[in-house]
Amino acid sequence: MFDWLDGAAAVRDAAGLTRRLRSRPADDPVLDLASNDYLGLTRHPAVTAAAAEAALRWGGGATGSRLVTGTTEQHTALERELAEFCGYQAALVFSSGYTANLAVLTALAGPDTLIVSDAHNHASLIDGCRLARGRVARAAHCDPASVRAALAARAEPRALVVTDSVFSVDGNAAPLAGHLAAARAHGAALVIDDAHGLGVLGPGGAGAGAAAGIAGQPDVVATATLSKSLGSQGGVVLGPERVIRHLVSAARTFIFDTGLAPAAVGAALGALRLLRAEPGRAADALRVARELADRLTDAGLDASAPDGAVVSVRADDPEHAVRWAAACRGEGLAVGCFRPPSVPDGVPRLRLTARADLTAEQVAFAAGVVLKTR
Amino acid sequence: MFDWLDGAAAVRDAAGLTRRLRSRPADDPVLDLASNDYLGLTRHPAVTAAAAEAALRWGGGATGSRLVTGTTEQHTALERELAEFCGYQAALVFSSGYTANLAVLTALAGPDTLIVSDAHNHASLIDGCRLARGRVARAAHCDPASVRAALAARAEPRALVVTDSVFSVDGNAAPLAGHLAAARAHGAALVIDDAHGLGVLGPGGAGAGAAAGIAGQPDVVATATLSKSLGSQGGVVLGPERVIRHLVSAARTFIFDTGLAPAAVGAALGALRLLRAEPGRAADALRVARELADRLTDAGLDASAPDGAVVSVRADDPEHAVRWAAACRGEGLAVGCFRPPSVPDGVPRLRLTARADLTAEQVAFAAGVVLKTR
Ligand SMILES: Cc1ncc(COP(=O)(O)O)c(C=O)c1O
Ligand SMILES: Cc1ncc(COP(=O)(O)O)c(C=O)c1O
Repeated sequence: MFDWLDGAAAVRDAAGLTRRLRSRPADDPVLDLASNDYLGLTRHPAVTAAAAEAALRWGGGATGSRLVTGTTEQHTALERELAEFCGYQAALVFSSGYTANLAVLTALAGPDTLIVSDAHNHASLIDGCRLARGRVARAAHCDPASVRAALAARAEPRALVVTDSVFSVDGNAAPLAGHLAAARAHGAALVIDDAHGLGVLGPGGAGAGAAAGIAGQPDVVATATLSKSLGSQGGVVLGPERVIRHLVSAARTFIFDTGLAPAAVGAALGALRLLRAEPGRAADALRVARELADRLTDAGLDASAPDGAVVSVRADDPEHAVRWAAACRGEGLAVGCFRPPSVPDGVPRLRLTARADLTAEQVAFAAGVVLKTR
Repeated sequence: MFDWLDGAAAVRDAAGLTRRLRSRPADDPVLDLASNDYLGLTRHPAVTAAAAEAALRWGGGATGSRLVTGTTEQHTALERELAEFCGYQAALVFSSGYTANLAVLTALAGPDTLIVSDAHNHASLIDGCRLARGRVARAAHCDPASVRAALAARAEPRALVVTDSVFSVDGNAAPLAGHLAAARAHGAALVIDDAHGLGVLGPGGAGAGAAAGIAGQPDVVATATLSKSLGSQGGVVLGPERVIRHLVSAARTFIFDTGLAPAAVGAALGALRLLRAEPGRAADALRVARELADRLTDAGLDASAPDGAVVSVRADDPEHAVRWAAACRGEGLAVGCFRPPSVPDGVPRLRLTARADLTAEQVAFAAGVVLKTR
């Protein structure tokens, strides 16, 4: 039955698209520009202590669906504080950003709903669109006019416009105000996936919705992961009270999934409180990203111009990207190696994370390694 | 745009199907028969200490996809030990059982694959079927003949048979040997979701596959959650090496999801090692389940006959189930209250977990409360 897998593996090998897992030690000596730990909080003592305390106090797991035993007082506190920080009426925490995205799209769209989805959206949004049972129109990347055209041509009574706020691979930002205007002109709501915006964009890192001045609007819903700037695991949906209430009773990935583990809730709460106490971290991440991008571009590399804390550099082909990333690691620098299907346009890239806590020397070292290993 | 939600909420209210979140304190005094903590390990000191240590050592989160920075040496150890314990060639850990199920079905089935799915399967398997892009045939509940008929009638070259091992609501077991024989007769593979079997069935709790003598077969793949018997969070896929290798390179919920948080990996490893050191826990859970079911049935209630560590009792209607569960809580007993869409046949139920660590007095108390509040 599974013989076909060997053929699939051979095809993947030939195309340079086989992926392998590398186990990392706790004390990896390389400089890490591959993680999504944008604010450098994952190993901050206040964050790890909050995670450890939560595990000791509440247990290793949430023990059930959020609706049964999986909601601790800590989950409720995290939801309240996230909603307040990001500027939305209410919030709901999930076991991952992936399941949060599936929840929003399946619970807010149905057969009578057109979903207009940016061509470069994250896989979890695409899967959510597929599960939602409505028609999906792919809009040109970051193009409100394309969104308008799709909405205007629809027969469905309802519509959602859905987009990443900051795109994961190049770190470019979506035109959220333009998208919202397009949605409003056609009676649609806007869903933004702020996985890469939370903690980086907006006042103190309150996210792309706050940065664009659209957080908390009655027709705006945001999702985010707790696994990047907040250094933990989990996802969250932010939006109007009635949307959150609806998800509680209707979202399958909420009802039929075990609640987020106490340690992850604790880590995210710890990181959020740190971020509120030290609001300069968000701006630091953006500054580092610009420094890094400038250095790479000035050296003649094909680097992205980041709006968030991600910089990517184009490679020639998948094998080249793999060799290049390995050469960087050989020089003491970990970078992401992105190949199809992890790139929206088929172009392989190195992906570098501009951590807020990188020093000028580390940025210079990183740029130097990327350049010399090209 | 979201005005329709108010109408949907009113319909739900009128049908008694509105769900509300209850925050639980760390020191809830009620006797908990609502969680899925089958072995009572979630708050075991060895498990919480392992979670805390992992967070302190590795950080609050995995920091990226398993393929980028999200695989720690601890993830690899957990995979090795789970595969060995459950009797499969290899294992792959996910952020949840939900995403593990989506991974298996989407990566192993496609347009050329018929999926034969038990009528009572878990929501995550159903969503996986929907995402897989192949045709899905619903087989009668626990009925290998129905599986055979669906497989025999297919035009697709490939086929998967997929079933829960122990069904979440009534605790009844699937006829795995019969399903595998049916699959083999028609060139199909068998996928079992062992969420409720791991830790409870089989020698020492090695799971339903081990109990049925089919673990490790070349045409058998199992999934499980780390959030029930193992007291943590996360999911795992167990199966032949080539299946696991395929998932690493092809499963969207693996590639595009942040790795399981270190604390959750630590808790699951801690629980697994406890279980191996004290293999009697699995049998204890089954014994408690039978005692509880016998007491309820003897008292004239419509209770299920459990093959696993779950006992359910039928209620008259959704409102009755809600009132009954609330009355139990008033008497110091937490039970699950399952209403549509969380029941496969529309019949609302109380759901009681037979924790391995319940004393005979606690079982008697629980049965007494359920009876007197009927
Ligand atoms: C844009 C985007 N959305 C959603 C996710 C999924 O979040 P999580 O990893 O918490 O499942 C990610 C990354 O993992 C992402 O980059
Ligand atoms: C049968 C079954 N499969 C899968 C899952 C999902 O696992 P998780 O909660 O880890 O997402 C559950 C319960 O949550 C379940 O009962």
